[in-house]
Amino acid sequence: MNKKDTTCKEPRLVANWQTLTRTFIKPEDDASRAVLLKYMEQILFGLHDFLKKHVGITEEVSLKDLSNRFTDTIISKNPEKKLSDVITELIEDIAPHAVNVASPYFVGHMTSAIPFFMVHLKTLVTALNQNVVKIETSKVASILEKQVLAKIHRQIYKKDETFYNKHVQNARTTLGCFIKDGTMANLTALWVVRNSVLAPKENFEGVEKEGIRAAYKAYGIERCVIIVSRLAHYSLCKAGGVLGIGNQNIIAVDVDSNNRIDIKSLNKIIKEIKENKVKTEILAIVGIAGATETGTVDPLAKLGAICAENRIYFHVDAAWGGPTLMSEKYKHLLKGIELADSVTIDGHKQFYMPMSCGMVYFKDPSIMDSVIYHANYVNRPGSVDLGIKSLAGSREANSLILDGALKIMGSRGYSLLIEHGIETAGKFAEEIEKRPNFQLITNPELNILTYRICPFHIKQKLDRGTLEQKKMINKKLNKINSAVQRLQREAGKSFVSRTTLKIKNETEDNIIVLRCVIMNPMTNINILKEILDEQEEIYSKL
Amino acid sequence: MNKKDTTCKEPRLVANWQTLTRTFIKPEDDASRAVLLKYMEQILFGLHDFLKKHVGITEEVSLKDLSNRFTDTIISKNPEKKLSDVITELIEDIAPHAVNVASPYFVGHMTSAIPFFMVHLKTLVTALNQNVVKIETSKVASILEKQVLAKIHRQIYKKDETFYNKHVQNARTTLGCFIKDGTMANLTALWVVRNSVLAPKENFEGVEKEGIRAAYKAYGIERCVIIVSRLAHYSLCKAGGVLGIGNQNIIAVDVDSNNRIDIKSLNKIIKEIKENKVKTEILAIVGIAGATETGTVDPLAKLGAICAENRIYFHVDAAWGGPTLMSEKYKHLLKGIELADSVTIDGHKQFYMPMSCGMVYFKDPSIMDSVIYHANYVNRPGSVDLGIKSLAGSREANSLILDGALKIMGSRGYSLLIEHGIETAGKFAEEIEKRPNFQLITNPELNILTYRICPFHIKQKLDRGTLEQKKMINKKLNKINSAVQRLQREAGKSFVSRTTLKIKNETEDNIIVLRCVIMNPMTNINILKEILDEQEEIYSKL
Repeated sequence: MNKKDTTCKEPRLVANWQTLTRTFIKPEDDASRAVLLKYMEQILFGLHDFLKKHVGITEEVSLKDLSNRFTDTIISKNPEKKLSDVITELIEDIAPHAVNVASPYFVGHMTSAIPFFMVHLKTLVTALNQNVVKIETSKVASILEKQVLAKIHRQIYKKDETFYNKHVQNARTTLGCFIKDGTMANLTALWVVRNSVLAPKENFEGVEKEGIRAAYKAYGIERCVIIVSRLAHYSLCKAGGVLGIGNQNIIAVDVDSNNRIDIKSLNKIIKEIKENKVKTEILAIVGIAGATETGTVDPLAKLGAICAENRIYFHVDAAWGGPTLMSEKYKHLLKGIELADSVTIDGHKQFYMPMSCGMVYFKDPSIMDSVIYHANYVNRPGSVDLGIKSLAGSREANSLILDGALKIMGSRGYSLLIEHGIETAGKFAEEIEKRPNFQLITNPELNILTYRICPFHIKQKLDRGTLEQKKMINKKLNKINSAVQRLQREAGKSFVSRTTLKIKNETEDNIIVLRCVIMNPMTNINILKEILDEQEEIYSKL
Repeated sequence: MNKKDTTCKEPRLVANWQTLTRTFIKPEDDASRAVLLKYMEQILFGLHDFLKKHVGITEEVSLKDLSNRFTDTIISKNPEKKLSDVITELIEDIAPHAVNVASPYFVGHMTSAIPFFMVHLKTLVTALNQNVVKIETSKVASILEKQVLAKIHRQIYKKDETFYNKHVQNARTTLGCFIKDGTMANLTALWVVRNSVLAPKENFEGVEKEGIRAAYKAYGIERCVIIVSRLAHYSLCKAGGVLGIGNQNIIAVDVDSNNRIDIKSLNKIIKEIKENKVKTEILAIVGIAGATETGTVDPLAKLGAICAENRIYFHVDAAWGGPTLMSEKYKHLLKGIELADSVTIDGHKQFYMPMSCGMVYFKDPSIMDSVIYHANYVNRPGSVDLGIKSLAGSREANSLILDGALKIMGSRGYSLLIEHGIETAGKFAEEIEKRPNFQLITNPELNILTYRICPFHIKQKLDRGTLEQKKMINKKLNKINSAVQRLQREAGKSFVSRTTLKIKNETEDNIIVLRCVIMNPMTNINILKEILDEQEEIYSKL
């Protein structure tokens, strides 16, 4: 850990060839196997013991004190520790200062408990160490990835058997791809759009080859824009920056009183853009299926219709909400997603995969042709190498994990999780509305809600006050909510996050709200009540 | 696997809440723990048994036949299999059709065996499931990441203790970042350069915000270019495309007879660009430390000097060669890397980490300020959230693996691996030159070499023939080498890859060569001799 910790009392370890190569050999004898298994036991259950003892974000040690322990920057020449000591250190010294995202009291972010079998599946993928960038280092893993992509594609687009028979193992077409995370999935989708809209044509070899400046010239435009709601994930803005169209051209449309993209404002903006003397191409409209802050779903069917009418590419960021499609009961909430040209879904969110696994799906199996890259030594034309159409290069066979999980859970298993989240969030909202100390800010459409501490007497003042008074009160409430959230986090028993939302009323104030994400099946209404109790207690002592 | 396989003979599995939630609970009783551990044993040693039996890329089943087994695209409503069956299926039906990259006979790609402790460390990271995009879902893991980044930064840049004390845990500065892979690392570096060169200034808010077109206008330029050698990894070209400068503006300079960027050609190109009437900004010159195809290292010190003289940003793609810095004996091969403004290194290559882990390092700890993104709910200004300066969003705590590995191996452990690779490649080159059936094409500078089958009598004709004859002979040799590589791969005993290189002589032919990457410590000269024997035998039967 720090310099003092590395002072070895044991006889000094020495790196030598014999010891080293042994770590590469499959152990043959029972004794070595038993040792390796023992380490695995330590990892599986040593951590479990810790996770039982600690909840939320432990703060016994401040961030500053903790940082001070990790300042040594010299790599030791000889080994500092044996594997068993490294594991022990990780379990005893490191893990206690990590965040117990698996606790049912950790309801602040989109990171949560994962089923234990995910750890087994990831271990298997790690031991195989395939690289799906090319068939020569993956073979069956690349084939299986295509199958899993088709399975999820079918959940979204519901094309017929003929379509999937044609494309599931077609080397020339692509139903989607696995990528690092939702940010990279959104970037991939918008990269594909940009290249499809600014495609090669007479005397122009396409934006990918000639760049933005030449593309705008060839197409006689001065700027490209992408339209999103102002609750869109910041990765869309980042994608605009990375892709060279400029992040100020990611136009954020206001939301309606339900935190969904405001269709009237959207239509107005489209009209303005079309009439603007600055010749502008609308590359895409992005709908959100599960906004990061509020969990709300944009009116996807309406957005799809607007896109079709105006011949605009339609992308849906369903990084959060995508797996809702697995629930017969709630999949209607994502109605219209099948109209999307592309859809982002995160595996490490509501597919409960280990960190991290993003995916992006495309309606048109040939659209990824706009991002093809070949190389002599890999990804040769005509090969089935998945790296030919992919933002990333080397990557592990995460599809094996999703495939295994789908087999173990069935869609019904996933839908139970989805339904638990949505219904528990509903009950939680009722509880918040019952308590006079709280104000529900955004109702849960999926399994995310926001609220704030706003005692009844203050609420009354807020209703009756002048605009000036209201602004003052909101400022004060912001301070209170910010403090309560921090104090609760620091107490280490539970964790809700906070964010800032612009409220839809005459003040248009930015208000600080508490944000809950209900995805852990062990999180129930009683735990949520405890969390509210604690917040009330902290508030009462402020 | 396919439809037939899913016909369940056991009593049908049913998804229910009780079974489901049990997968989220830490098992308390010894019996459940024993079962979970048994699965882990199956994974650890079931695969080991397979890896012992199979070598290279098994081809008993053709890709087409294999694909036909993975065509079912319907997700079963209820569970299809229990974890134990999924594991058994993966081990017995899937793994045998994966590629045994861990075999010492697999010397074709940069994917290889990993020490077994890497599997343990990855399992631990998975079980912790931290998300280092923000401190609230990672805490100590973010702190440890900063420390590990500083450790590797120090290997590259060798700044003094004061520098590292100042930056190792500085929330406002960044010595580098972990990212998916080398492709994303190169993209990150060039994104940072683009934004630094086309930075905000009077009446211009920077390329990230306003986009490429406005940036070129503000800076009075018509194009941006990045200069690389023609042996550069294709990810650099892709980065040019993604970033909107156009991949045709990634200018590939010819190489000298040692496959290093030709300095004379480079200087000529710089001069031409400066004199060109198309106003062009040279964003960066990229040096390679370990070319993908030949393993060669560009003259980094000279490149550094040229960049300094011309005030051009200097990036080094050391995705492959970076860890050579750990070897006292061979680190001189990377002399000049400390002049680089940024350096890409892959963890899953010569740091022997599991697939996949890229990294990028920056000399200037503030340069990543040009790619800052904030959001209300995460990565708030002033926080230590690592996601503020990162191309990706959610990601696992891979730094824990590298940190553990550095402690277990020491730099000496890594240097033993590096030295084994370089020296075995050297012996292999000697062996190739001894055999009259082979021609060494590129000498190994690090641990990669290329050669081809070119029997002595043909070599003589090549030396004496007319230009036309030479071209004909090379064409014929291409067919031979392509066939031998394929037949050897299909035989399933060993695997070398093939690529196409342009040879530096009067024919300037594109020749197909066999490519070997020596990174597995179990690969020795005897195995390599066997591989040559097999190639000779295959050739003799063509």
